[in-house]
Amino acid sequence: MVQTCDTCWGWVITGREPETLAEAGEFGLIAALSAWFPPGPATLVGIGDDAAVLAVPDGRVVATTDFLIEGRHFRRDWASAADVGHKAAARSLADCAAMGAEPSALLVALAAPPDLPVSWVRELAEGLAAECARGGAHVIGGDTARADQVVLAVTGLGDLAGRSPVLRSGAGPGDLVAVAGPLGHAAAGLALLEEGLAGDPLVHEHLRPAPPYDAGPEAAGLGATAMIDVSDGLLADLGHIADASGLRVDLDSAALRPGDRLTAAARAVAASRRHSARTGLVTRPADDLALDWVLTGGEDHSLVATFPAGTRLPPRWKVIGNATGSSRDHGVVVDGQPWAEPPGWDHFA
Amino acid sequence: MVQTCDTCWGWVITGREPETLAEAGEFGLIAALSAWFPPGPATLVGIGDDAAVLAVPDGRVVATTDFLIEGRHFRRDWASAADVGHKAAARSLADCAAMGAEPSALLVALAAPPDLPVSWVRELAEGLAAECARGGAHVIGGDTARADQVVLAVTGLGDLAGRSPVLRSGAGPGDLVAVAGPLGHAAAGLALLEEGLAGDPLVHEHLRPAPPYDAGPEAAGLGATAMIDVSDGLLADLGHIADASGLRVDLDSAALRPGDRLTAAARAVAASRRHSARTGLVTRPADDLALDWVLTGGEDHSLVATFPAGTRLPPRWKVIGNATGSSRDHGVVVDGQPWAEPPGWDHFA
Repeated sequence: MVQTCDTCWGWVITGREPETLAEAGEFGLIAALSAWFPPGPATLVGIGDDAAVLAVPDGRVVATTDFLIEGRHFRRDWASAADVGHKAAARSLADCAAMGAEPSALLVALAAPPDLPVSWVRELAEGLAAECARGGAHVIGGDTARADQVVLAVTGLGDLAGRSPVLRSGAGPGDLVAVAGPLGHAAAGLALLEEGLAGDPLVHEHLRPAPPYDAGPEAAGLGATAMIDVSDGLLADLGHIADASGLRVDLDSAALRPGDRLTAAARAVAASRRHSARTGLVTRPADDLALDWVLTGGEDHSLVATFPAGTRLPPRWKVIGNATGSSRDHGVVVDGQPWAEPPGWDHFA
Repeated sequence: MVQTCDTCWGWVITGREPETLAEAGEFGLIAALSAWFPPGPATLVGIGDDAAVLAVPDGRVVATTDFLIEGRHFRRDWASAADVGHKAAARSLADCAAMGAEPSALLVALAAPPDLPVSWVRELAEGLAAECARGGAHVIGGDTARADQVVLAVTGLGDLAGRSPVLRSGAGPGDLVAVAGPLGHAAAGLALLEEGLAGDPLVHEHLRPAPPYDAGPEAAGLGATAMIDVSDGLLADLGHIADASGLRVDLDSAALRPGDRLTAAARAVAASRRHSARTGLVTRPADDLALDWVLTGGEDHSLVATFPAGTRLPPRWKVIGNATGSSRDHGVVVDGQPWAEPPGWDHFA
């Protein structure tokens, strides 16, 4: 865990920021991090001891951890440090929300090369803190290490506040399937970036997904029977609910029709791909491409949940299908048919 | 967070283990991990959902996170996968113990190259589980990702069971300074490995530190005023207590005299270094080298704590000095003098 040393606070106090991590030193960096991440109301012990102590009055704590690795999950030439901070926080905070919990805290482990600019780390911290503020959480600790590439491992902790956790396994036949938050926006943004079309606002949604954290506890309060955040794609993630609950999920393509922004982006991407005539990618028509993004695009970290039939849902929860079938026939279908595209994302494939 | 998929359980059930992570696939690996890490009594939701849920009846949770990076913290040609698992768990569990908490749970994030043998990951999991069993904890979740080298980021969660956390800042003038567990053994083992002298049992103590976890809650119960685990070296880590508490720590070299095993190892290392005649390392006499290990060797993860004068300590707590001086004169001295060797370890230097 992080340590601090009060003789290392010099540059935090004087404001003369060192240029690189090598110049700042480990303890200088940690001192800066503790200044950048002030304690929150539930932080009983924050950065600077062997471990943090967090108040979890519920008597249970929700805990999740996620990597964000340079070259794998982000590129420093595409994403600003603040973008990376937002995304790193969003991944773990959304996992907490998907259990029906209110996010409380993050632990941030950062490995980096010694020549990484301190200004990059400061902007990373600003992004982390800003996304935590969106979710109502605070950074309470972490670790630093040296590595050839930037590696973040972010642990999220959350509070159920008396609610039962919403698992993947609780969906029942007849349940409504509903989503809160956008689908396919992050995938569209990534495709635009790959084509060099960085001016579209969807690119921002790829770089800084904005999960609707409070929709998680809201869904739990509305009686959600199962919930997951869309990190790997709607079909893949609903597939986990279908598998864990032993049923079939039938999506209604009419409810998933891509909006104007996605359609326009798909046309721009398709035109650019035709122009560069890259094999394999050229053949997908723009309308299909937009629907692919909705069904298989990950990293929006929207929340998808099942609710008992007849549940009156607030407007931000959009019904997109229902759960049917028996345990012998699980999986996810669209208008009753399997979807042709590969639904998954395998880190080791 | 990790996901599971019941169609991927094939090789866990049939026993035909795939050779590499690429062959196992992400979801195959995660299914195996959930079989290797069964839930513990406090695991309300374990591996296989968006997040884990842990019972923390105290209403507070102790949380810490630590990296273990190939080439930086371990070498696969020196350490077995089980060794790496033991060490990765020990680092985080010891941080929990150093707060006075009983370790409850680990979240293990593992990034690895696709050609990593599945057998290596299985043995890693066995090492993690065995060290968790020593500490009374269970693995409740984690993450997997692809990277060029093996990167572990382990989060430890602990339970204070009604006790106040023991901080670094609570030591007072006149307090006893005492240590539970070995000092310098891990450093001696590393030096032996570097000289190709792998037969000495101290090498095992480098590869698998065995922190006295229950000494942490014990110290809290005895009224410890400050505590830290020895991860960076006794002088460096007591320096954090001295800084945070605003006082001076005076160590008694007579109480820190290296034992026969360390002295013999130092002679073997010194002889080997003279033989290879490497510059810089040759000049340190064997007796000084052994004391260096005791004072500056990290990674034993023993616990060092301060106690009010007159505290009757159980035999495993060895008094090694006392806290004195004013806030204007803090730092750590040995027999009243500054120690000549550099006391720290800076990840970015």
